[in-house]
Amino acid sequence: MSAEARLRELGIHLPDARPAAGNYIPFRRHGDLLFLAGQGADGHVGRVGDTMTLEEGQAAARAAGLNLLTQTRAALGTLDAVEEVVRVHGWVSCADGFTQIPAVVNGASDLFVEVFGDAGRHARTAVGVWMLPLGFAVEVEMIVAVRDGAGGAYRHAL
Amino acid sequence: MSAEARLRELGIHLPDARPAAGNYIPFRRHGDLLFLAGQGADGHVGRVGDTMTLEEGQAAARAAGLNLLTQTRAALGTLDAVEEVVRVHGWVSCADGFTQIPAVVNGASDLFVEVFGDAGRHARTAVGVWMLPLGFAVEVEMIVAVRDGAGGAYRHAL
Amino acid sequence: MSAEARLRELGIHLPDARPAAGNYIPFRRHGDLLFLAGQGADGHVGRVGDTMTLEEGQAAARAAGLNLLTQTRAALGTLDAVEEVVRVHGWVSCADGFTQIPAVVNGASDLFVEVFGDAGRHARTAVGVWMLPLGFAVEVEMIVAVRDGAGGAYRHAL
Repeated sequence: MSAEARLRELGIHLPDARPAAGNYIPFRRHGDLLFLAGQGADGHVGRVGDTMTLEEGQAAARAAGLNLLTQTRAALGTLDAVEEVVRVHGWVSCADGFTQIPAVVNGASDLFVEVFGDAGRHARTAVGVWMLPLGFAVEVEMIVAVRDGAGGAYRHAL
Repeated sequence: MSAEARLRELGIHLPDARPAAGNYIPFRRHGDLLFLAGQGADGHVGRVGDTMTLEEGQAAARAAGLNLLTQTRAALGTLDAVEEVVRVHGWVSCADGFTQIPAVVNGASDLFVEVFGDAGRHARTAVGVWMLPLGFAVEVEMIVAVRDGAGGAYRHAL
Repeated sequence: MSAEARLRELGIHLPDARPAAGNYIPFRRHGDLLFLAGQGADGHVGRVGDTMTLEEGQAAARAAGLNLLTQTRAALGTLDAVEEVVRVHGWVSCADGFTQIPAVVNGASDLFVEVFGDAGRHARTAVGVWMLPLGFAVEVEMIVAVRDGAGGAYRHAL
């Protein structure tokens, strides 16, 4: 089943694109690699293990992942142009002594596997950080490989 | 206008290359991607929102960006060999509760757009971190795409 | 001398692969780039400059580096398929005011140079972070370039 078909089956509607918080663009394509800028998620603000529970952190990671899918579709026209998710970085604002950082970032990783199947499985690094832009609890970024022949390079849209 | 011409027009003189702080090299080229090591900037030490103001943080980011341009020129011979800036990571040592991390990293991003124009616009992730090497306030790294035919791969210089 | 021969000469036996701490895979190959997931090292838990000394942090970084070599061999069949180490990220959980982060990450970088020689020299970013998964003191990730013709893409093993 295609990624767009899976999205529909799962009843997932991707959110609108968030405005950039600074002087950057949401993605840059180079050859068949698409580099996506880090995404947080509006309303998911706080520190996991302190002002937020693990479950709230996972929801923040999933929401950030949805924002990444929104940008991926904007870059490529369709999620079906994704060959595979190559690498994910997950940054978690967390309490001192909070070590369940991987479980938080699974909120995004699980989403990618739901949508892309095995092609959504990725190399990943998860880190607990001090503060995130706008006070976000979680920020996620990724590199995606694009299928041969899929168009939509951002540079052409500038 | 070429990037080197813009630099001259802006009156920017790139600093000398800083020595590496550890057992690494300042860049590694692979195909037409140039991976640059993270750069801080000497004299820009502290914590933004605590011992440094936002403006001082932005100056630190710009200075780190200049150090990246120095290394880019060293790698490629000329900044005119840059096709585009693909991705930037900005790490900011900041106070608890400081959320203007994107505005700090703009100090580097604005520089890249000044010098390269639209080709300097990049996917970016900005994170507030606990501590940086040598006590730097800001560290910035980037991946740059190299124009077809541009030489200067580091591996050949070893 | 080949990397595998150097390993034998150095008397290094690579550890068994650690299980993933979340919903991710230890590596994803794209073309001739191998993206490795971040690795900590079991038993190397704490905060450098606080509950751990610099030397203990360096040992943690070296152990994380060994885990990366284990995964590199698993991905490619042999370390001799490595053309060069392109980029390394080192994340160090450290005390407030601890600035010797590069010296800690050298624990991994030195290992890569011992094993691969000049081909092991890499662009690097080292950052002091707040918390790491499972309480690890150090986490290290890398991107490796693969020699032409070397097989073993993970996607084929799924």
